[in-house]
Amino acid sequence: MDTNKFDFGMVGLGVMGRNFLLNVADHGFSALGLDLDAEKAKALDEEGAGRTVKGTTSTEEFVAGLKTPRRIMLLVPAGKVVDSVINSLLPHLDQGDMIIDGGNSHFPDTERRNKELQEKGFYFVGAGVSGGAEGARRGPSIMPGGNPKAYEHIRPVLEAVAAKVNGEPCVAHMGRGAAGHYVKMVHNGIEYGLMQLIAEAYDLLKKLGGLTNEELHRTFARWNEGRLQSFLIEITAAIFAQKDDLTDGDLVDGILDKAKQKGTGKWTSQNAMDLGIPIPTIDAAVTMRGLSALKDERSRAAAHYPSDRKIKSVEKGTIVSEVEQALYFAFIITYAQGLSLLDDASKEHDYGCDMEAIARIWRGGCIIRAALLEDIRKVYRAQPDLTNMLLSNEFKDELAATEEATRSVLKKAIDAGIPTLTLSSTLNYFDAYRSERLPLNLVQAQRDFFGSHTYERLDREGIFHTEWGS
Amino acid sequence: MDTNKFDFGMVGLGVMGRNFLLNVADHGFSALGLDLDAEKAKALDEEGAGRTVKGTTSTEEFVAGLKTPRRIMLLVPAGKVVDSVINSLLPHLDQGDMIIDGGNSHFPDTERRNKELQEKGFYFVGAGVSGGAEGARRGPSIMPGGNPKAYEHIRPVLEAVAAKVNGEPCVAHMGRGAAGHYVKMVHNGIEYGLMQLIAEAYDLLKKLGGLTNEELHRTFARWNEGRLQSFLIEITAAIFAQKDDLTDGDLVDGILDKAKQKGTGKWTSQNAMDLGIPIPTIDAAVTMRGLSALKDERSRAAAHYPSDRKIKSVEKGTIVSEVEQALYFAFIITYAQGLSLLDDASKEHDYGCDMEAIARIWRGGCIIRAALLEDIRKVYRAQPDLTNMLLSNEFKDELAATEEATRSVLKKAIDAGIPTLTLSSTLNYFDAYRSERLPLNLVQAQRDFFGSHTYERLDREGIFHTEWGS
Repeated sequence: MDTNKFDFGMVGLGVMGRNFLLNVADHGFSALGLDLDAEKAKALDEEGAGRTVKGTTSTEEFVAGLKTPRRIMLLVPAGKVVDSVINSLLPHLDQGDMIIDGGNSHFPDTERRNKELQEKGFYFVGAGVSGGAEGARRGPSIMPGGNPKAYEHIRPVLEAVAAKVNGEPCVAHMGRGAAGHYVKMVHNGIEYGLMQLIAEAYDLLKKLGGLTNEELHRTFARWNEGRLQSFLIEITAAIFAQKDDLTDGDLVDGILDKAKQKGTGKWTSQNAMDLGIPIPTIDAAVTMRGLSALKDERSRAAAHYPSDRKIKSVEKGTIVSEVEQALYFAFIITYAQGLSLLDDASKEHDYGCDMEAIARIWRGGCIIRAALLEDIRKVYRAQPDLTNMLLSNEFKDELAATEEATRSVLKKAIDAGIPTLTLSSTLNYFDAYRSERLPLNLVQAQRDFFGSHTYERLDREGIFHTEWGS
Repeated sequence: MDTNKFDFGMVGLGVMGRNFLLNVADHGFSALGLDLDAEKAKALDEEGAGRTVKGTTSTEEFVAGLKTPRRIMLLVPAGKVVDSVINSLLPHLDQGDMIIDGGNSHFPDTERRNKELQEKGFYFVGAGVSGGAEGARRGPSIMPGGNPKAYEHIRPVLEAVAAKVNGEPCVAHMGRGAAGHYVKMVHNGIEYGLMQLIAEAYDLLKKLGGLTNEELHRTFARWNEGRLQSFLIEITAAIFAQKDDLTDGDLVDGILDKAKQKGTGKWTSQNAMDLGIPIPTIDAAVTMRGLSALKDERSRAAAHYPSDRKIKSVEKGTIVSEVEQALYFAFIITYAQGLSLLDDASKEHDYGCDMEAIARIWRGGCIIRAALLEDIRKVYRAQPDLTNMLLSNEFKDELAATEEATRSVLKKAIDAGIPTLTLSSTLNYFDAYRSERLPLNLVQAQRDFFGSHTYERLDREGIFHTEWGS
């Protein structure tokens, strides 16, 4: 037995990697870290003092120091770095060793790597990890996919370090192939949607209700005690309370309204379009990041199209109540869109996703954790094959109860000229999804008219074409 | 001189290819067609009787029969077929011969083919062709890109066959590399947007105003006499007048509301997301095709969420006027989104697009031809470097004049539960585009809170990070 060897290895000792490894060590596994940057390897040694943790800058020493079959996780930037790290490790590894990519890799890359490594006799696990630096240290949500045998080998470590909700660890095998990174991608798409919905809620409360930052803080803090309880609502409350060291004002008012992105939200929308699954709330959130980035152009457009709209101020209690309802309505539908995409992708890519497990491990540790996920989990436990959770009975009454307030808020936004692309896309999704008939019979007629693309009929089977205008 | 040889060659003698070639022959160029299907080659001979047109099934005969440098156009299905046709031609060609891909190829494929053929000493022109079978026969809009020298060689033929508007041919060199297919892709994205806007207008007129098909026919026909004048409005008017041979009713009522797609609209949205350019109207149109395809799921959702909304019927004249204004408002913004994407892509891919030329050649022959394009052309003639045509003075008053009606229609749609994802995304784009401040300062705060992604400030330069909650 390699009693002097380490249980678990990590390549990439940035904050995420170090924190994850300290978390591993806290749970009784000895942990060895590799980073070519000696500073970071040293930082691990210092932060890990008193635990069985060690940092090194030597690939040889790293590989030789791990128990076999080796469990090596990578937390390095997605893209070419992952390939080059894998290539630098491979010559030193033994058959049956496992590489776990814990970064935000795009799922087609994970598919390719999984195949390549499997052919060479190694195991590869693409694992989404959510929760940021704090989550990595105290308990993230982990979404591993790939070979189930490999998962069994790493499971004890991952279950130990993952966040726990009512004693259940926020980690489970997500499915075959690239399932882990696909699930993480959709997680991030939902994250984009929720964040932009909250931003629109902030705008509405501020412009229609005249809420101050202090009132916004209290409102979000109160919401976080109710059905909207979630990590994003919680930190939003904290953000409004944050003072600005540079101006004595509130920090939120000093921040430039240009939102950046790293691509995972965009990938979600792009892939949903490939599959033909509608996720307009997430699309809208991606689009709003793009619009926000056009700051200079927006300034010019604001001068060109000055809005002289009178904003009728609304009684604070009314608008707070309506926005809370609209946000709850929209949160439900955002999760529904993301999960319907996952359901379809799982079939398309043969991932074999367990929808209940996904909802379960999202309840803690990750950015989109929310009280609502407990209800969603119940839905999928009762109906594992549901294509869209809106078709369950669970949310029927809640959507019906919050629908009117959502309509009311959106009409006020239209009157006031306040952009609400994401919230209004959400209501439109709901109204379209429950429309037995949509006016796209006309679109099919147009397509057949100018391109002879044919059409189907409502009243009989078959493919039809008309010589229009004849 | 090869006096017995043909001026122009076409591979692919489907309806589009045959029609295009007959059009070429009508303008005094001798035309040779190749198709492995003898039926189609024969059909060309028959349809071309009396003209210098010939069909063949032999690649050798085809290539040997063309004047050099050869001008060979392909009108075959996009994808692998294009590559296999090119590979079958190459061994027979001479240096300097030209291949023109007239199909709906995806621009990255065109980029690759352009490079490969250039390296081998051939010219490649990726050319979008719009107008359907009728356009190919009577005059399409043609969007060729690639090597300008090659364009000069094919220009006489293309200018002869293209649609004419006030004597100007609807063809011009679109730019370097894959510019032609990129422009055609965005053309199709705009087409998706306009078609879905018209479908939503139809739904609103029918549900809110109770218009019959006969009234819809007359309304669209009248609109086509005014500022909405366009091919799509024109055929929509005709569609509502079309009788159903199978039921004695109106054909539009018999058509299944499941719209298909061939990918070009989707590519536009996906690529816009890659570039970070917001085109939410086009995204919404793509999404609505996806939603329409979920017919069975929608039927179940309709039963699950029955809408008991009372639709307050609106006076016909009012709703017709408001929807006309909303449609005009939205048409302007849809072109603006598409052209802003083109402007950005041209810089990104170094296409060197001439925006005025694009607006000019879209005025005739193609599916999105519209009176409005004359105004758009003028804008880009005066300001060739405009990043977004909304920043010109041309549309300022018209948007201001139609904005209120757009808001009014959308509020009615919200009340009635009529989905208007595309129209409402258009108004939201407008309201967001002219917002100097958007609430995405909160999104940046959230990103910095959970992921240390840093933020910029409004009041000073630099990159900042905060230890939130401390």
